[in-house]
Amino acid sequence: MKHKFGVKIMPREVILDTQGRAVEQTLKLNHLDVEMCRVGKYVELEIEGTADDARLKAEMIAKKVLHNPLIETYEVKGL
Amino acid sequence: MKHKFGVKIMPREVILDTQGRAVEQTLKLNHLDVEMCRVGKYVELEIEGTADDARLKAEMIAKKVLHNPLIETYEVKGL
Repeated sequence: MKHKFGVKIMPREVILDTQGRAVEQTLKLNHLDVEMCRVGKYVELEIEGTADDARLKAEMIAKKVLHNPLIETYEVKGL
Repeated sequence: MKHKFGVKIMPREVILDTQGRAVEQTLKLNHLDVEMCRVGKYVELEIEGTADDARLKAEMIAKKVLHNPLIETYEVKGL
């Protein structure tokens, strides 16, 4: 059976998020001020196997391949 | 009061997602085959105001500034 997962990868709080700052400034110029803006990535995966195996694989992919632990945090969710 | 929203922006189904294909191939080379992989963006916004105003503003920002309707779809969620 196929299982779908969403992996959200965001820059760590302590990291200066240049993309987020750029979006924030663009919004300000357009009179759409926000208190905070951070930009990350979102990866959707579809994995074949049992529910447990698929989740383990998704977690491993997110941990080992998709995110850079020095500057990013990740979160895996079933979809 | 401050309200936090997450905006998920994904390439449309009909669009060839080159980033997703690259990730898929990298996973395959590492014996971590997946059925499908698509890569999008995730933007976290914090907006000041009443709950309704903040949501409207988040929706407008996502619609008008953050996504390109030709090639992307978006989804706004309260966090």
